[in-house]
Amino acid sequence: MEYRVSAPEVLRDPLVVPEKLLMGPGPSNAPARVLEAMARPILGHLHPETLKIMDDIKAGMRYLFQTNNAATFCLSASGHGGMEATLCNLLEDGDVVLIGHTGHWGDRAADMASRYGADVRLVRAGQGSSLTLAEIRKAIESHRPSVLFLTQGESSTGVRQGLEGVGALCRANDCLLVVDTVASLGGTPFHMDAWEVDAVYTGSQKVLGAPPGITPISFNHRAVERYQRRQTKVKVYYWDMFLVGDYWGCFGRPRIYHHTISSTLLYGLREAIALACEESIPSLISRHQDCAKRLHDGLRAMGFELYAQEQDRLPTVTTIRVPAGIDWLKVSQYAMKTYLVEISGGLGPTAGQVFRIGLMGQNATSERVDRVLQVVPRLHQSS
Amino acid sequence: MEYRVSAPEVLRDPLVVPEKLLMGPGPSNAPARVLEAMARPILGHLHPETLKIMDDIKAGMRYLFQTNNAATFCLSASGHGGMEATLCNLLEDGDVVLIGHTGHWGDRAADMASRYGADVRLVRAGQGSSLTLAEIRKAIESHRPSVLFLTQGESSTGVRQGLEGVGALCRANDCLLVVDTVASLGGTPFHMDAWEVDAVYTGSQKVLGAPPGITPISFNHRAVERYQRRQTKVKVYYWDMFLVGDYWGCFGRPRIYHHTISSTLLYGLREAIALACEESIPSLISRHQDCAKRLHDGLRAMGFELYAQEQDRLPTVTTIRVPAGIDWLKVSQYAMKTYLVEISGGLGPTAGQVFRIGLMGQNATSERVDRVLQVVPRLHQSS
Repeated sequence: MEYRVSAPEVLRDPLVVPEKLLMGPGPSNAPARVLEAMARPILGHLHPETLKIMDDIKAGMRYLFQTNNAATFCLSASGHGGMEATLCNLLEDGDVVLIGHTGHWGDRAADMASRYGADVRLVRAGQGSSLTLAEIRKAIESHRPSVLFLTQGESSTGVRQGLEGVGALCRANDCLLVVDTVASLGGTPFHMDAWEVDAVYTGSQKVLGAPPGITPISFNHRAVERYQRRQTKVKVYYWDMFLVGDYWGCFGRPRIYHHTISSTLLYGLREAIALACEESIPSLISRHQDCAKRLHDGLRAMGFELYAQEQDRLPTVTTIRVPAGIDWLKVSQYAMKTYLVEISGGLGPTAGQVFRIGLMGQNATSERVDRVLQVVPRLHQSS
Repeated sequence: MEYRVSAPEVLRDPLVVPEKLLMGPGPSNAPARVLEAMARPILGHLHPETLKIMDDIKAGMRYLFQTNNAATFCLSASGHGGMEATLCNLLEDGDVVLIGHTGHWGDRAADMASRYGADVRLVRAGQGSSLTLAEIRKAIESHRPSVLFLTQGESSTGVRQGLEGVGALCRANDCLLVVDTVASLGGTPFHMDAWEVDAVYTGSQKVLGAPPGITPISFNHRAVERYQRRQTKVKVYYWDMFLVGDYWGCFGRPRIYHHTISSTLLYGLREAIALACEESIPSLISRHQDCAKRLHDGLRAMGFELYAQEQDRLPTVTTIRVPAGIDWLKVSQYAMKTYLVEISGGLGPTAGQVFRIGLMGQNATSERVDRVLQVVPRLHQSS
């Protein structure tokens, strides 16, 4: 049979990948050790060396999540996969899920949960603020949810959600606590076991500085028991906690073939986690907090107004109100074109209203903060 | 707060990635150009250079699928994601899906479709055989499905499913035709438009020799119309054809942020597709077919029995009956340990019954076939 569609000419051109300074809300720049690891040969999904790397990642993520959960593994998907998998495994048709809304990720979780057939309720924080424990308590008592979903690091608004006391509140109300730490883990404290968080996931491409496409996740015994009590199968094979967990050797059963994992992404993530473990959580966190303070002080000195309330401010993603008369898109494009520095616009509820600057992983250094502070005042020229 | 879980010692060890000859059913060895591309710096998911690479991939995949479909893009997941996305987008609760069963992948599709609430019917081929057009016609007339699912390259049994005439049959019966080409594309002819296939996906890590974790997929206008006529939202945000397709710029609407794509995997896939386009489909296919013939002839000369019927044999994955008295697991482990050559056991219905040898991408050369034929007779020593 004749070949009617011909090969495109564009693929004869070389691959073009410029080096940029990624100071947006993620991905961040990956360390050289991570990039070099990804050029290593492909391994099979059940080779002993692959399983060893997966075990290393599990051990490292238990440290970074501060948990002893057996069910600590990764999904072969972007951070959105973590949101899908926590909701999909823990909810059945008609279950009430309460979503703490501090920005875009609350809307996204609501969309996903409603597709899975859950009864979705929202509790909204004020603009640029997080929810107080009292607000959360009131919402739990009024909605009686089986799952509470919170975003620790809301990258659209730059708001950090406090978590202390929420786990105990959930246990007292027979509710599971799910936390999104995609944009926060490693930049702000997180103690899964001590804070009684039942399910968590994070982003590989933020503070960790690994490539996107592989998402660490952890479920505790309460979440596993909820899964075991399900009346119906999890709706998505690809996200099914027991199937993925058995592939990752989490439940003491023989390893199964669940899907073909990307050895390339495992190499990158393993090296990124090794770097984070070497540095240690306390040092990671103080580095991110010091850099955030330097950035915030510098921006305020220039007259910029920050969007998030001071006590609720996330160190990893800073939101700056777009000054009147400034076209944010032009500014962002100008920064990229002129300085090869990424400064992003808003997302969801903050679209058009804020700039977002990320300080994550190897980009959280005083040199890079100063680079951003040099570039920012020149951006007025672009408008 | 105190850190109760300490950093694991294992992450102080270097990353160990041996070089192996991957002659199993996938992943195959990636060419050096693909591996080198993956060490390039990370790019953001909406950077113009990223969008350009995505456009290159779309153009290349239209050639490899032989289609002009606008809705040709990739999922950020393993090949299983392609199966999830085709079923999830095209089925609603209670819809009848007919699955042509020639091995493990039919069972997997049945599991996924039933989780999505579909009414699943199977039509089973004889052992080591594909379905005839007459068998498919009879099953369609009896079950009246809204979707027919076929696996062109059934990697568990080594069976190739013929597709000519099936598309027309489906159109005459108001049924969509979904085809899994994970293990077959590039190794055996496939003409999406000419054969009237409505949805297809393939594996990146097979004939293409790219890393796993990113899955090319294409939907034609009939599949898009079926999506548009849905009464309910697609159950999974992550697989939603219109959302992913809008991110990939497939529908003429503005690009949206759907998820954070892995630029690393895009680089690898783009280079792998460029190599395939350079070689051309006819050359790719004849290379795979010539190698398969050389392998099959060699194995038969040694007295091995092939599992798949001759007229239904897939060139990319060869299934060999395990001779009586041989422990397949020991043999497979011995081949890996002694020769660093991967030869796999069976999967699903063929577990314990067959060995599987893959000839895919850069492993489909007469030198590598001869290497396998040298190793195979020595494997008796291991049992």
